[in-house]
Amino acid sequence: MGPGADAGERTLHDATKLGELIARAGWVLLTGGRNEGVMDAASKGAHDAGGLVIGILGDATVDNASPWIGVAIVTGMGQARNNVNVLSSHVVVVCGMSQGTASEVALALRNGRHVVLLGVGSDAEGFFQSLGGAAVSVARSPDDALAIVRRLLNGGSRL
Amino acid sequence: MGPGADAGERTLHDATKLGELIARAGWVLLTGGRNEGVMDAASKGAHDAGGLVIGILGDATVDNASPWIGVAIVTGMGQARNNVNVLSSHVVVVCGMSQGTASEVALALRNGRHVVLLGVGSDAEGFFQSLGGAAVSVARSPDDALAIVRRLLNGGSRL
Amino acid sequence: MGPGADAGERTLHDATKLGELIARAGWVLLTGGRNEGVMDAASKGAHDAGGLVIGILGDATVDNASPWIGVAIVTGMGQARNNVNVLSSHVVVVCGMSQGTASEVALALRNGRHVVLLGVGSDAEGFFQSLGGAAVSVARSPDDALAIVRRLLNGGSRL
Amino acid sequence: MGPGADAGERTLHDATKLGELIARAGWVLLTGGRNEGVMDAASKGAHDAGGLVIGILGDATVDNASPWIGVAIVTGMGQARNNVNVLSSHVVVVCGMSQGTASEVALALRNGRHVVLLGVGSDAEGFFQSLGGAAVSVARSPDDALAIVRRLLNGGSRL
Repeated sequence: MGPGADAGERTLHDATKLGELIARAGWVLLTGGRNEGVMDAASKGAHDAGGLVIGILGDATVDNASPWIGVAIVTGMGQARNNVNVLSSHVVVVCGMSQGTASEVALALRNGRHVVLLGVGSDAEGFFQSLGGAAVSVARSPDDALAIVRRLLNGGSRL
Repeated sequence: MGPGADAGERTLHDATKLGELIARAGWVLLTGGRNEGVMDAASKGAHDAGGLVIGILGDATVDNASPWIGVAIVTGMGQARNNVNVLSSHVVVVCGMSQGTASEVALALRNGRHVVLLGVGSDAEGFFQSLGGAAVSVARSPDDALAIVRRLLNGGSRL
Repeated sequence: MGPGADAGERTLHDATKLGELIARAGWVLLTGGRNEGVMDAASKGAHDAGGLVIGILGDATVDNASPWIGVAIVTGMGQARNNVNVLSSHVVVVCGMSQGTASEVALALRNGRHVVLLGVGSDAEGFFQSLGGAAVSVARSPDDALAIVRRLLNGGSRL
Repeated sequence: MGPGADAGERTLHDATKLGELIARAGWVLLTGGRNEGVMDAASKGAHDAGGLVIGILGDATVDNASPWIGVAIVTGMGQARNNVNVLSSHVVVVCGMSQGTASEVALALRNGRHVVLLGVGSDAEGFFQSLGGAAVSVARSPDDALAIVRRLLNGGSRL
């Protein structure tokens, strides 16, 4: 999960790599489903690596869905769908920060999910670590994020 | 879509067949995801035929999810998830009737989806045809339901 | 609860009367909140009789809210808010029929609420009575509907 | 809005005072509705000052509702109801911090609402100011928070 239209180039590059690594690990990638930002970049990365991408859209139509998602879940409930995103995820990997993304991190922690932060800046790292304690990890790279997720899944961080 | 614990034997048999036919057509099956009734039977039919099944759960956990779904969407929003089910579907096929199922038929019509009714009884057929007009079809069998869906999809009944 | 733009004159008249009677009984009126149809008519009736009206809007703004509601709950979740309407109601009184209204009746029954039907037509009466059994009452007039609600509340039909 | 069971004494005291001031200003208090923490304290403050309190519950029943709320909105959608809370508010006043509260601040900003922070700590202040810019104010006391809200409402910060 991560910012939409405002995502920077480095964030988008990391998101594409994350999507690719998630697909290669044999996992399903779940995103917010829109055709912009981290959602779109990660979806493309996973799609091009042959992975399955589920996009959970806040809109009531697929008009702004990423072309790289395989299955669109159309909620029509706006930002309330952020809670569906995190409840449906075994682990939440965050790439970059925005208002919507911050809500997903907080909701993930509230619902007992582990969050891996990548490139979110020191303010966000500090705040969310104080908010989530051991449920928050900071990754240095997409590869590092994947290694953390792999350890969490082996340790049973599941729905 | 169809009843949970109260589904009769004929309804369950039809649901399994529908799941199988949907998978063989190369389509994704979307259900309410629980491990009972039509949701479970249709999911097993699609799973055994090699299809992808998406289960949209009203619960906040996967404790009662069908073992035959491939991807669980965990909404934690109870029956409000019925609206997500129909918004995410190109066509809604209903097999058997219950209170939750009736809400899905009505929500599907409200959101402009075509509904195919199979084995719902004449009261339900009459009511929903008066409510939905040409957006409601009645099928005589799983094969007939599939033929109706195929015509609708070729005609562009999409999200 | 009842139809929006398509409500007929008799239905609107009954809705206004229902709102007035609900307010005079000292109860809070809860509606779907929009500025049309039964929602608007019932809200006006309750408002003019000095009652409190809560409007639960599916929209993400109050742009189309009825001017007669006292408090707007803005859900931004479209027809999924119909489930909030019924969960928040002690008893559901339905005046006229439409696709959205039918979903509310079904959801009310699914969530264990009693439903009082007024002027919904014999098809709907028959279908919902077969679906809900003793949880469905048919009223002959707004006064009759109120008498039924009063009996239910005294008998403990609550959240 | 603010923490539930983990709220400290100072936070609860401020919440009660905020509720009282909101009621005296003639405004409606909207909270998450549960019988604990800031929700309960603010509701008691407003109730005792004669105000109207709306509680938007994540639960599907009123079993854990605060006794001080006047109207319970029962969403049955867990933390997804946090988005309803902020969409339904003209201004969001936050008293203390928690995971659920952090999601509400982020969702409020994402939906274009102004947020007033009281006693949330410097980490949270810093993070949310970087996230929300001019849409975030920091109050030094309940009275200060009220003065900020009054300026915002006069300036037109509305739904």
